[in-house]
Amino acid sequence: MDQKPAFGCLKYSEQHAPGVGLTLDISEILASEQSAYQRITFYRNPYLGVFFTLDGYIQLTEGDEFAYHDMIVHPAMAVNPQIKNVLVIGGGDGGTVRELCRYPTIEKIIMVEIDERVVRLSQKFLPSTACVIDNDSRLTNIYEDGLTYIKNSASAQLDLIIVDSTDPIGSGEGLFSREFYHNCHRALNKNGILINQHESAFYPWDGYEMKRANDKIKSVFPIAKVYGFNMPSYASGYWYFGFAAKNLDPVSDIKAEQWQNFGLETKYYNIELHKAAFALPSYVKKLLSE
Amino acid sequence: MDQKPAFGCLKYSEQHAPGVGLTLDISEILASEQSAYQRITFYRNPYLGVFFTLDGYIQLTEGDEFAYHDMIVHPAMAVNPQIKNVLVIGGGDGGTVRELCRYPTIEKIIMVEIDERVVRLSQKFLPSTACVIDNDSRLTNIYEDGLTYIKNSASAQLDLIIVDSTDPIGSGEGLFSREFYHNCHRALNKNGILINQHESAFYPWDGYEMKRANDKIKSVFPIAKVYGFNMPSYASGYWYFGFAAKNLDPVSDIKAEQWQNFGLETKYYNIELHKAAFALPSYVKKLLSE
Repeated sequence: MDQKPAFGCLKYSEQHAPGVGLTLDISEILASEQSAYQRITFYRNPYLGVFFTLDGYIQLTEGDEFAYHDMIVHPAMAVNPQIKNVLVIGGGDGGTVRELCRYPTIEKIIMVEIDERVVRLSQKFLPSTACVIDNDSRLTNIYEDGLTYIKNSASAQLDLIIVDSTDPIGSGEGLFSREFYHNCHRALNKNGILINQHESAFYPWDGYEMKRANDKIKSVFPIAKVYGFNMPSYASGYWYFGFAAKNLDPVSDIKAEQWQNFGLETKYYNIELHKAAFALPSYVKKLLSE
Repeated sequence: MDQKPAFGCLKYSEQHAPGVGLTLDISEILASEQSAYQRITFYRNPYLGVFFTLDGYIQLTEGDEFAYHDMIVHPAMAVNPQIKNVLVIGGGDGGTVRELCRYPTIEKIIMVEIDERVVRLSQKFLPSTACVIDNDSRLTNIYEDGLTYIKNSASAQLDLIIVDSTDPIGSGEGLFSREFYHNCHRALNKNGILINQHESAFYPWDGYEMKRANDKIKSVFPIAKVYGFNMPSYASGYWYFGFAAKNLDPVSDIKAEQWQNFGLETKYYNIELHKAAFALPSYVKKLLSE
């Protein structure tokens, strides 16, 4: 034998419940640093491609980010194709603003990300999601706490707020508070829509947080529904977003033809799936109505 | 220190793609044997409970079998609540016949499972799924190859065939053949429905098999659609079944009120979700139409 083969393999394992987890082989550690807010690590996996974790939780993989970013952006755009003025809180990888920038009718996007290092590292290692950052004149990046930003923002100016945050721990925690939702409500105009992270329902910790978030939003917005999608790299393979609005219903107010006229090719989203995403398994309906 | 603590932990890891897998801690190996057909192993996981593998692939976990068994049984029953005569091929754990036996209107169920050892071990370690086996006079168990059984079965006698099989490898392979689907078509009456395993779409091997199965069924049945559901312990967290029929459409022919009159409590299934399950992500539609 010329050379002894390498038998070691680095593995990243994320626990979703006690003794249940997703395990990803690591072919390369691209970057790992402690920013002012969190530990940021970028890895490469042989199948899912580049992925990164914040404080040890997977945020995004190249392989399935299309589902997440389709579903965080397009449902709101199909309910109100007139959306022009958007605020994104979080979303430092750039995937959410990438999808927003595909709409020529959107005039202004402000992205408020607390941690500039997430943006800079995404630009370096995830150009497929970070591609529009610094490359679209409609987009302004602000590096600030979203909580402070929304508190000081003008009233009734925004058409859409997307909260593309981490889980409700660490730097993301305030983005799941009633005060934050009240400020979003105030900043949105009469057709305003708020889309936010809603965790998952199958594993207990996620389900607990999903219920807490939904209860708070329901107390602030007259319309507050939940929709789901298949996200292979997240706990249980299924993830939820919340759709909250002052007067637009996410299903009965869909403008299917207007949305289709945008002519966007989407790998996950389509109009039938949009409606379907709001149909919840019985145990999820029960969890949210208890 | 009185005693040295145990630092070891047995883990079961199933690869879904190169370097991507689900890892389950094993708190107990309940049984492991080589039957005439396959290696059967029953384990216990601290969160998902008892689960078993056939030739190293997870078949079922106590924690999420409710989603699988709801979705393999109830959609067909909601499309044709008059179903009386059912054939189940595979399904040795008993979960599928358990759900069928909840319908007082079903008169006869034949379960053809190739491997009696799966049934016997399920009765021992999975009483929550195997509970109706040997306990419902409408149910007959036959230990035989489903392929042979269907070849020799009478024509136009069955209302419903459910193929609750393993993946299309090993003993399950023939259950994905065109000849088998032809025999199912022949054995079904004019309102007959065939439900079968359809793998998954996200990871390449699964997607390849899904497409192959669907193409073959489409060449045999005039109605051949695919529906999905969140299955946390399966590859990508999302799994699909095929709904094939001679004349009943799985969505437009739903008898919602009649099904609701059965008064069944279901943890996953409900009528809105039934319709929604047939809306597929764009990449899955593309895969199946190519």
